Amino acid sequence: MRQSKLFVKTRKETPADEVSTNAKLLIKAGFVFKEMAGVYTLLPLGFRVIKKIEDIIRDEMNNVGGQEIFMTVLQEKQVWEKTNRWSDEVVDNWFKTKLSSGTELGLGFTHEEPIARIMSHYVSSYKDLPFYPYQIQTKFRNEARAKSGLMRLREFSMKDLYSFSRSKDEHDDFYEKMKHVYMNVFERLGMGDKTYITISSGGSFSKYSFEFQTLSEAGEDLIYIVDEEKKIAINKEDYNDEIVRDFDLKLSKNDLTEKKAIEVGDIYSLGYKYSKAFDLKFANEKGEDEYVYMGSYGMSPSRLLGSIVELNNDKDGILWPESVAPFQIHLISLVKDDKQVKVVEEVYERLKNSGFEVLLDDRNELRAGEKFADADLIGIPKRLVISEKTLLDDSVELKKRNEKTSTLIPINEIVELLKQ
Amino acid sequence: MRQSKLFVKTRKETPADEVSTNAKLLIKAGFVFKEMAGVYTLLPLGFRVIKKIEDIIRDEMNNVGGQEIFMTVLQEKQVWEKTNRWSDEVVDNWFKTKLSSGTELGLGFTHEEPIARIMSHYVSSYKDLPFYPYQIQTKFRNEARAKSGLMRLREFSMKDLYSFSRSKDEHDDFYEKMKHVYMNVFERLGMGDKTYITISSGGSFSKYSFEFQTLSEAGEDLIYIVDEEKKIAINKEDYNDEIVRDFDLKLSKNDLTEKKAIEVGDIYSLGYKYSKAFDLKFANEKGEDEYVYMGSYGMSPSRLLGSIVELNNDKDGILWPESVAPFQIHLISLVKDDKQVKVVEEVYERLKNSGFEVLLDDRNELRAGEKFADADLIGIPKRLVISEKTLLDDSVELKKRNEKTSTLIPINEIVELLKQ
Repeated sequence: MRQSKLFVKTRKETPADEVSTNAKLLIKAGFVFKEMAGVYTLLPLGFRVIKKIEDIIRDEMNNVGGQEIFMTVLQEKQVWEKTNRWSDEVVDNWFKTKLSSGTELGLGFTHEEPIARIMSHYVSSYKDLPFYPYQIQTKFRNEARAKSGLMRLREFSMKDLYSFSRSKDEHDDFYEKMKHVYMNVFERLGMGDKTYITISSGGSFSKYSFEFQTLSEAGEDLIYIVDEEKKIAINKEDYNDEIVRDFDLKLSKNDLTEKKAIEVGDIYSLGYKYSKAFDLKFANEKGEDEYVYMGSYGMSPSRLLGSIVELNNDKDGILWPESVAPFQIHLISLVKDDKQVKVVEEVYERLKNSGFEVLLDDRNELRAGEKFADADLIGIPKRLVISEKTLLDDSVELKKRNEKTSTLIPINEIVELLKQ
Repeated sequence: MRQSKLFVKTRKETPADEVSTNAKLLIKAGFVFKEMAGVYTLLPLGFRVIKKIEDIIRDEMNNVGGQEIFMTVLQEKQVWEKTNRWSDEVVDNWFKTKLSSGTELGLGFTHEEPIARIMSHYVSSYKDLPFYPYQIQTKFRNEARAKSGLMRLREFSMKDLYSFSRSKDEHDDFYEKMKHVYMNVFERLGMGDKTYITISSGGSFSKYSFEFQTLSEAGEDLIYIVDEEKKIAINKEDYNDEIVRDFDLKLSKNDLTEKKAIEVGDIYSLGYKYSKAFDLKFANEKGEDEYVYMGSYGMSPSRLLGSIVELNNDKDGILWPESVAPFQIHLISLVKDDKQVKVVEEVYERLKNSGFEVLLDDRNELRAGEKFADADLIGIPKRLVISEKTLLDDSVELKKRNEKTSTLIPINEIVELLKQ
């Protein structure tokens, strides 16, 4: 894409109330626009990145047998009353609204209730199970404070998968599998080495659940790392002697280092809570009715977008991992002479035709320094510069965003060298 | 995909309050689940169809220079007060909600205001223009009545593109181009021959606007067809002598036949209304400030989903057009013998590896008649049956959903013959 056609420009200023690094950088670099605290529009560059995050997640969910669906934002009171989660006393971050008839509705902050209700219409036999529907959909949480940029939003993209199993054993197998699936996602997002499977309280559903926590000074959570190699940690909030016993951990609290981390995912064993509430049963092989055993598996692409920026930035801007960068190559033209511009256009076309995603900085009115500053701020992994000087050697200058030095590469070998 | 793994089954019954053909068929065939009037969850088959509709729209929008973004549902009062569209007296179908602090918010029913505000931060020079952001995003309208199934929803998917031009002339060129782009979309969705570019009132923005109306007895609109060849019509509601004069139409009202139609898209010249409200200006070539000339272009994938079903059904179920069918081939196995099942599996793999999307009915417990009834209801364009009888001829039976007769095709030529 041509930068001259991209309607978004980098900005020097950010809104006065913006304190988080991720939102500041994403606003300055033109990835998002702040509508209000905790609510951001995705501009073309931000949209490209979140699509890539979502497609990586989608790929991993499909690989494990997930089937994509799309549930609704609007939620009926009577559905949530069945589990006692309608009341604002119980759930303090509902957004509520009303039909013109006066009937109260809520905006979905999660979807256990509606999916259990849906499935009660389709499940009848043990042959129907197990299955794993998921969606990537917009959720709403009426957060009192929204100061962490894209990491704690009032309106956000969420991937939520739900598992429906015949027994606790069948569930446990899938639950274990999902730990690896989640780690695959974080690996592919370039944050695998900093992400820990973190033991935490299971809330009202089960004794324990697991969170995925990524080390970052911007995190709102504190974790104790238990096993560096196996990437196991405990949420500080939930640490107690019982956990140490239950997980047979050979450690005392003194051995533990406290680290700040961002919660980037969580997986829950829900047991029978929702299947009982919605009468979600199946006939087993003997023809006897049993309740379905449920699990839920959350992960927010918007929060991941913010987290990736927190993990990958320097004083000049963002450093996108290859897998989610808005473009792979930022081709910067510093030439104006017609013949030289033609060379730039040829390189641009050749790279695109070879399958690279290229942002071409073809803007005439900017100086070299301004273009470089924009490139650093936007953070595309590879910068290619074509100038009068590089053309004297029939070359382009390659500089990686995460390296200080640049190299000249011959134009006629450009595709081969970049593919390496 | 294997039908035995698809957690959704066809249903005999539909909710008692459901009167529309499209929703009845989509519910029975397992494409959607009704959450409440005007609010439907997309199940795996429905999700596959809407993705295809969206991708066709996306492709056409990208071809005309559209840049995809993603705006927010939550809307601030003060933004909409600038154009006097906040009040429920003026806009009667807002859903409103509140932050925990008490601040009122709305759920976006359209996005002219927020996009004009966003662009006022990025546009400064004539060199920045024209450009065409668009999104495919969920919108909310608090409809008093919601009886037309997927054709009039309270929560629905919408593609809205906005054009930002330097002058009325530049706008008019793009606006004309969009008429063709819209007709391309309807053509690709298999409804081109029934869709008319329909002159209607421009509302508060301009004298006229254009709707796209598709002939159907399920439609809520009435149109007069003016030119069958050029596919021009007039909305009956807006018909008057002035239109006949302004468009130089050689006709009298007596010549006109009234037809029922579904509004499947609309395009508006917005002029300066929003750019004035949000101080959206650019410096022209002389350095003088001018307001940006705006247009908006709407089309709802959810409504198109409903419309396609209204246009393509018979007493047995849906008949999907090839371009949006959830699968291209419904492969139905009527064999149980291991050796014969192996042939089915080989055919399934070969078709998938040749690029076909195949739904394999591998369910053991159903009789042939039940499988055929399901296939007709679901409506995949090509049905392939493998039975003991067809295997005697090393063949499969091909029946198209829109034809009465079937033919035997040899298994070893199956890919070649289906690709024709």
